[in-house]
Amino acid sequence: MIIIGVDPGTVVTGYGIISFKGNEVIALEYGCIRPSGKKHVNDRCLIIHNGIEALIQKYQPDALAVETQYVSKNVQSTLKLGMAKAVVILAALRAGVKVEEYTPTTAKKAVTGKGGASKEQVQGMIQRLLNLSEIPQPEDAADALALAICHAQKLRFNQISYTSSSQSKLCC
Amino acid sequence: MIIIGVDPGTVVTGYGIISFKGNEVIALEYGCIRPSGKKHVNDRCLIIHNGIEALIQKYQPDALAVETQYVSKNVQSTLKLGMAKAVVILAALRAGVKVEEYTPTTAKKAVTGKGGASKEQVQGMIQRLLNLSEIPQPEDAADALALAICHAQKLRFNQISYTSSSQSKLCC
Repeated sequence: MIIIGVDPGTVVTGYGIISFKGNEVIALEYGCIRPSGKKHVNDRCLIIHNGIEALIQKYQPDALAVETQYVSKNVQSTLKLGMAKAVVILAALRAGVKVEEYTPTTAKKAVTGKGGASKEQVQGMIQRLLNLSEIPQPEDAADALALAICHAQKLRFNQISYTSSSQSKLCC
Repeated sequence: MIIIGVDPGTVVTGYGIISFKGNEVIALEYGCIRPSGKKHVNDRCLIIHNGIEALIQKYQPDALAVETQYVSKNVQSTLKLGMAKAVVILAALRAGVKVEEYTPTTAKKAVTGKGGASKEQVQGMIQRLLNLSEIPQPEDAADALALAICHAQKLRFNQISYTSSSQSKLCC
């Protein structure tokens, strides 16, 4: 199963694509989309959408895990966050890819066991979990990988629960 | 020249398409996209995007005029406003249609001469300007028509200015 995690933003949008089967999880690609700051926010949104759309076409993921943003007190920033999030989600839905949302706390907890883990702790644990040769950079890409891992863990948990439940039925 | 005006929102998105040539302005179509409130906001955004995309394909507008939203104090509402706005703008940019933004005050002023005009005044003036047999409803559609008229007026003004400037040159 392939999952793409995305941490949206009109300045930097992090992404991370993982493949997992049983206990084996590998990183296929990670990085960020960083449209020129000179561009209008509308054009930046188009670049982000096209970038995520290209990744979806390339890797054909089964799901896209996106960050449920903590809304900012600055309403203009919140409006832009909403715009970035929408164009990312749209790329998935247009391709028939399921969308799941997780808060940063849930994603951190899934990776490190602590919702309040530092960025360094998250990056270090992702490096270990995915057996990467170096710390995943930039942090937006690491956050995106954390979202993808979080969703993989949820699916694995559901699978275990389902198997366990099926076995119980067989025993009855 | 054809212009589509859009007043985005995840609950109701108003649209209005006008055609203008010289002083003649006619309404080609207006109405609203109202996704089921039972749907998740992400799915509502997909419906809005697909609806605007279909209108663009049908009418091949030269420009899309969209409302620059007054951001709400409620950050969740602002986030959703940003999402609706982004998927509308994306439909235009993906089709190579230019996007222009106007505040509600500018649009009202363009139609009635007063930025603080009431909804009824705006609807009444739009009915007169477009020679409609009835008051344009719902108000989101009227607001969208106001945006389209506002952009038409700007283009006409630029054209007059340009012609006047060209004539000045010819006189020199």
